[in-house]
Amino acid sequence: MPIISADRLVPFVRDMFVAAGTPAPRAIRVAQSLVRSNLVGHDSHGVIRVPQYMGGIRSGRIDAAAEPTVEHESPGTATMDGHWGWGQVAAWEATQLAVRKAQQSGLAGVALHSSNHVGRVGEYVEEIARNDMIGLIALNNHGAAMQVAPFGGRERRLSSNPIAFAAPTSGQPILVDITSSVVAEGKVRVLRNQGRPVPDGWLIDASGRPTNDPNALYADPPGALLPLGGPLGHKGYGLSVLIDVMSGALSGGGCSRAEHERIGNAMFIEAIRVDAFVPRAQYYAEVDGLVTSLKSCPPAVGFTEVLLPGEPERRTEARRREEGIEIDEETWHQLSDVARGLSVDAPA
Amino acid sequence: MPIISADRLVPFVRDMFVAAGTPAPRAIRVAQSLVRSNLVGHDSHGVIRVPQYMGGIRSGRIDAAAEPTVEHESPGTATMDGHWGWGQVAAWEATQLAVRKAQQSGLAGVALHSSNHVGRVGEYVEEIARNDMIGLIALNNHGAAMQVAPFGGRERRLSSNPIAFAAPTSGQPILVDITSSVVAEGKVRVLRNQGRPVPDGWLIDASGRPTNDPNALYADPPGALLPLGGPLGHKGYGLSVLIDVMSGALSGGGCSRAEHERIGNAMFIEAIRVDAFVPRAQYYAEVDGLVTSLKSCPPAVGFTEVLLPGEPERRTEARRREEGIEIDEETWHQLSDVARGLSVDAPA
Repeated sequence: MPIISADRLVPFVRDMFVAAGTPAPRAIRVAQSLVRSNLVGHDSHGVIRVPQYMGGIRSGRIDAAAEPTVEHESPGTATMDGHWGWGQVAAWEATQLAVRKAQQSGLAGVALHSSNHVGRVGEYVEEIARNDMIGLIALNNHGAAMQVAPFGGRERRLSSNPIAFAAPTSGQPILVDITSSVVAEGKVRVLRNQGRPVPDGWLIDASGRPTNDPNALYADPPGALLPLGGPLGHKGYGLSVLIDVMSGALSGGGCSRAEHERIGNAMFIEAIRVDAFVPRAQYYAEVDGLVTSLKSCPPAVGFTEVLLPGEPERRTEARRREEGIEIDEETWHQLSDVARGLSVDAPA
Repeated sequence: MPIISADRLVPFVRDMFVAAGTPAPRAIRVAQSLVRSNLVGHDSHGVIRVPQYMGGIRSGRIDAAAEPTVEHESPGTATMDGHWGWGQVAAWEATQLAVRKAQQSGLAGVALHSSNHVGRVGEYVEEIARNDMIGLIALNNHGAAMQVAPFGGRERRLSSNPIAFAAPTSGQPILVDITSSVVAEGKVRVLRNQGRPVPDGWLIDASGRPTNDPNALYADPPGALLPLGGPLGHKGYGLSVLIDVMSGALSGGGCSRAEHERIGNAMFIEAIRVDAFVPRAQYYAEVDGLVTSLKSCPPAVGFTEVLLPGEPERRTEARRREEGIEIDEETWHQLSDVARGLSVDAPA
């Protein structure tokens, strides 16, 4: 299995995007975003996406040169149009705008529509947290790509609707980046490809019965993922609806429903400057105290320690910065093919 | 079991609070809040609380005449001090302030500390939704009353940390009002009092082992409630930390940790005026479309229909407005005792 350092992977991916017609600053931005997902261990949002993105450029779904624009704004709010360009570019600009507005107004919200895949949502809230602000993002699939049943239902009506949150501490930020479904669809796909059953509580088949067969999700008619919570799935369902309304309705991108066919990401980004509410030192004392309290908790049976939200990602990143990023053979093969087609040299 | 109409219950409760030294407008506000919790079926946050509140007034924990104040503010933000008066009064004033600020700024956040129990959180986000705004509230127990273990831990480190959300639709608002723990502590207490086991996945005992014995939560040393999500409890844990930071750190009330002993509610309230982001008609078309899509979903096995978040409460309210509110004998007995002590007449 090839192991490549992030320092070599970023320019390789950048060069492919540039060769496919992306202006260099954007190509760097997207390459950095993908590689950072690999660094923190979210390989599903990493360079595995390059072939898919290249397909998007070829088909016109991704306009590699599009400029995100601000449709309208006030001191604390803005709505942005991604014009179906690079999602990582539009989401980054929307995040920076939210930070600038919160710098002025204390609290700011930016809604973004017509964006392609933005990658790992946690990246954007982490950026907000670097500015002594709390970051909060709700995201849906632009009203399309429904995979999740509402609590008590048997058909797909919602996407996996993630929510991300980051809060600054004196050390690393607390980072929460979770779907409101039990799992993301990709985890079912992995088990299906391995010929293994899915755990209880993940899936129902098309007739609305619980199943452990990952193929049920891809059958015709298809089954559905369940909302987070198991027997208490009304809670995950409620969260999913919250996320769908904030991202889909406030942005104008669209709530999840059959009328919306174009898959993308619609999002609502919030930045909250902590010293708009309490003195900065007081905020940090309180949050650092929470971190100490959580980390001091002795483990339950079957665990060895309590981790903070975001700590697993941080550990993977430290290791992969040291040792390099393992890329599976199939992904590496696909990347090499793309590079060859564009006359880009792969790292040796 | 006594059945009392809301119209008779409100003045009865009001008269008791007035007799105990609460200015009449506040007494009405608290009485209406409690009875409204009963109306929507959240009896644990209803008039059952009257004896506890009376104890709070007697001991000085509730200052029945305290005035909530705004500590500092900007056009879109404010921090409020409840001065340990009535929580329902402080939270209502904070909610109204958030709405007024969002009317001007599009997006507003109000943090509240030093508040006693605010009652049912859903009430405040519903009020925000009546103003063509989305309401979002995070709440903790002012850093105290820890009952929930972090994911992978065996000791209590967080409170049940609810989040509430309401979004206006052309019909009734969507209402999400959930704890980030599997259940609230009261549900374990009910099963313990009935001598029944708790379902799998709710509790661990003090040694960190899963248990079905509700007494484990009240043992010495005590067990702990688990975060929402079961095997995916890192998600409920992440939500709980998010809620704890937003409510406890931004308000200055305090994040959950052993240093905080005084139990109350700290909260962060957000109001988002929908037409600060999209034209109002577009927002409503999208959210109404989502409602139609969710309600059209055929039921899964074991269910008869898909309900919207908030719909169960709405149905209970319609029934109880029609038929009256059933008050259990023990609660009615306690209310009658309180009334007698204050020379207040109970409804016949």
